[in-house]
Amino acid sequence: MTTQLEAARDGVITKAMEAVAQKEGFTPQEIRSLVADGSVVIPVNTRRLQTVNPIGIGERLLTKINANIGTSQSYPEVEYEIEKLEIALCAGADAVMDLSTGGDLHAIRQAILDRCSVPVGTVPIYELMVKHKADFSIEKYLDIIRDQAQQGVDFFTIHAGVLRSHIADINNRLMGVVSRGGAYLVSFMKRTGQENPLYERFDDILEICRTYDVTISLGDGLRPGCINDATDRAQISELEVLGVLANRCREAGVQVMIEGPGHVPLDQIQRNMELKTQFAGSTPFYVLGPLVTDVAPGYDHICGAIGGTLAAYWGASFLCYLTPREHLGLPTVTDVREGVVASRIAAHAADLARGKAGARQWDNAMAKARIDFDWEKQFELAIDPQKARERKDTARGSDSVNVCSMCGDYCSMKLTRES
Amino acid sequence: MTTQLEAARDGVITKAMEAVAQKEGFTPQEIRSLVADGSVVIPVNTRRLQTVNPIGIGERLLTKINANIGTSQSYPEVEYEIEKLEIALCAGADAVMDLSTGGDLHAIRQAILDRCSVPVGTVPIYELMVKHKADFSIEKYLDIIRDQAQQGVDFFTIHAGVLRSHIADINNRLMGVVSRGGAYLVSFMKRTGQENPLYERFDDILEICRTYDVTISLGDGLRPGCINDATDRAQISELEVLGVLANRCREAGVQVMIEGPGHVPLDQIQRNMELKTQFAGSTPFYVLGPLVTDVAPGYDHICGAIGGTLAAYWGASFLCYLTPREHLGLPTVTDVREGVVASRIAAHAADLARGKAGARQWDNAMAKARIDFDWEKQFELAIDPQKARERKDTARGSDSVNVCSMCGDYCSMKLTRES
Repeated sequence: MTTQLEAARDGVITKAMEAVAQKEGFTPQEIRSLVADGSVVIPVNTRRLQTVNPIGIGERLLTKINANIGTSQSYPEVEYEIEKLEIALCAGADAVMDLSTGGDLHAIRQAILDRCSVPVGTVPIYELMVKHKADFSIEKYLDIIRDQAQQGVDFFTIHAGVLRSHIADINNRLMGVVSRGGAYLVSFMKRTGQENPLYERFDDILEICRTYDVTISLGDGLRPGCINDATDRAQISELEVLGVLANRCREAGVQVMIEGPGHVPLDQIQRNMELKTQFAGSTPFYVLGPLVTDVAPGYDHICGAIGGTLAAYWGASFLCYLTPREHLGLPTVTDVREGVVASRIAAHAADLARGKAGARQWDNAMAKARIDFDWEKQFELAIDPQKARERKDTARGSDSVNVCSMCGDYCSMKLTRES
Repeated sequence: MTTQLEAARDGVITKAMEAVAQKEGFTPQEIRSLVADGSVVIPVNTRRLQTVNPIGIGERLLTKINANIGTSQSYPEVEYEIEKLEIALCAGADAVMDLSTGGDLHAIRQAILDRCSVPVGTVPIYELMVKHKADFSIEKYLDIIRDQAQQGVDFFTIHAGVLRSHIADINNRLMGVVSRGGAYLVSFMKRTGQENPLYERFDDILEICRTYDVTISLGDGLRPGCINDATDRAQISELEVLGVLANRCREAGVQVMIEGPGHVPLDQIQRNMELKTQFAGSTPFYVLGPLVTDVAPGYDHICGAIGGTLAAYWGASFLCYLTPREHLGLPTVTDVREGVVASRIAAHAADLARGKAGARQWDNAMAKARIDFDWEKQFELAIDPQKARERKDTARGSDSVNVCSMCGDYCSMKLTRES
């Protein structure tokens, strides 16, 4: 089997490319060309080519969003995670990551893969942490990614860019390392004095990923964990390494994205996106939020939506959601839904501002439904039809047939219509 | 009595200016100077000088946020609006507008004024609409604002900038006029062929406002009601008139703000803020959202927070909240709280990005509380302590003393600490 990248370079238009072209309003040839130069990735494990409804991720395409689910040690039940998966899909997640750390990880992953028609990602180092604690070995890590790749995982977060030389820069931080994978690797490097084994054995990782066309998402183990640490030397030094690794991925025929922050104040978001381009060209940028402030626990889906809109506007292609439970605990099913919708709003607002295909038409259709007082059409067009209907139905004075209870007879549109 | 503006020009530092200076980390002399040139307003009716805890609104100061409350025809009970008022204040609203259109408007306003330690605004034309329907007369309007000013209202939205000459431009819109006041006046102008009486009799309005130092908020009756209509000719023509009227306010010794949109795609927000500056210099800009997309009814507090952050970053001084019930119905108490917090996040994220006084320190204190696993401190510092605590307590696995249930033992901060 060849990867999407290899096929694209060979001039072959795959079914996945055709599907992406159709969804995005591009010609298959255009998508092939974007995949060939690495500007677009289509994360589908070769084992899941019949299962996954392919999506393209890249700056030229519609912004995509990811929902994280997964068990924890205290809550290892797979059933609840399947519920989260279902609500994430229903709410419109474009991809899902299984970040499980509790229970039978292989079985949980299988259950998720079996039920998931969108790309599934994992952070394989979590499985290593859980199974082998501090007893790190690169051979065990390679076994784990081989097993997960065979299982059908579509993309892996690989923290190969955090190096021994970065450790000194971490000391200047308020919050140190906040990525679990990053912290685990830094801890290993400090303890043993060795270099990051994921970096040193990157070719072995590439070989496995190439075999199954697992897209690599180069993790930012040193992403800032608070506003104060944003865009600092540690973060940028790692980003530079990620740019080099991204080239190595493509040279090996492996599709690749780069992960980005994290906590970033509004005024630094554009610069962060530009730094990615400086170091990694058009490699798709996958950002976590970014959160524009630290002070709103309980509302981090909003902080992330603010930052995510800006990030996507300035070039991020893929937004990882944040739920209202971020920094406070493992998300519930309701949190997952809130998180997905908030991220979708960010993605769409950015697509709209960039004039991407279909975005403006959607808003105009809603405006028309409003001026027509066509409530059913408004619900249908709403990013979350169920919530929109619920909030209309439970509003005080919702008995009014036409106007809503906010303005009643003083509805401006009614006044305008009558004038 | 003199207005704050007149006092400032006379070189007098009022108690209100002193209070604002202390809150904002400026000297009283600096605040006086900003008030004198109209860059800052301090909306306090002379009758409420002993009651209101004064706030300053202006680009140089911390961004402020407003919560709209008020009865409707279907729900005229004042008790519920008082509940909303209380939750708005408790959640941190800097100002409140009473937009009541149902019940005994004078009595409701009095009840709100009696309980409200922050500036209270109104849109006096609503009372005219309710009391006199289509039977518009400028004398009745002046009576209403005189009555409201005597009652103690701190700021008025006055739609004096929408002119007969603008009507042609409205026809090019998808949604026409979506401001209730604007629609009412356009309807009057169309019906009678007369000019906007609020414009023609602006001097009479100024005289009343000057007498009680009611700050005028020049309403944007032609604000866009959907993404398609943003930054169009109708909106900009009116803004130009508002700039002229703002000068007339200041010449008459009346404090003045200008109201802004509305529905604006992300890429036009900066330009909207710059247009305000072009036409009205440093007059404080009071924006409604802006909403960055039309397609998310049920989540407009998020759409507004995204737009509001950008607007405040580019120069808006005062954000009017949007609740999750916007476009669907009259907000409930819970909606009010969600709306206030979302707007406060926007205001703070912008203040942080602009390096305003105290903003960064707040975030850094939160980061420190996180790295210390000091949950009580995190709750205390949270923008909504109650919600943060609630979401921690109700998280699955919330029994853990130190780490949260999201990462458990794989907490990066725990790993970092141990390494």
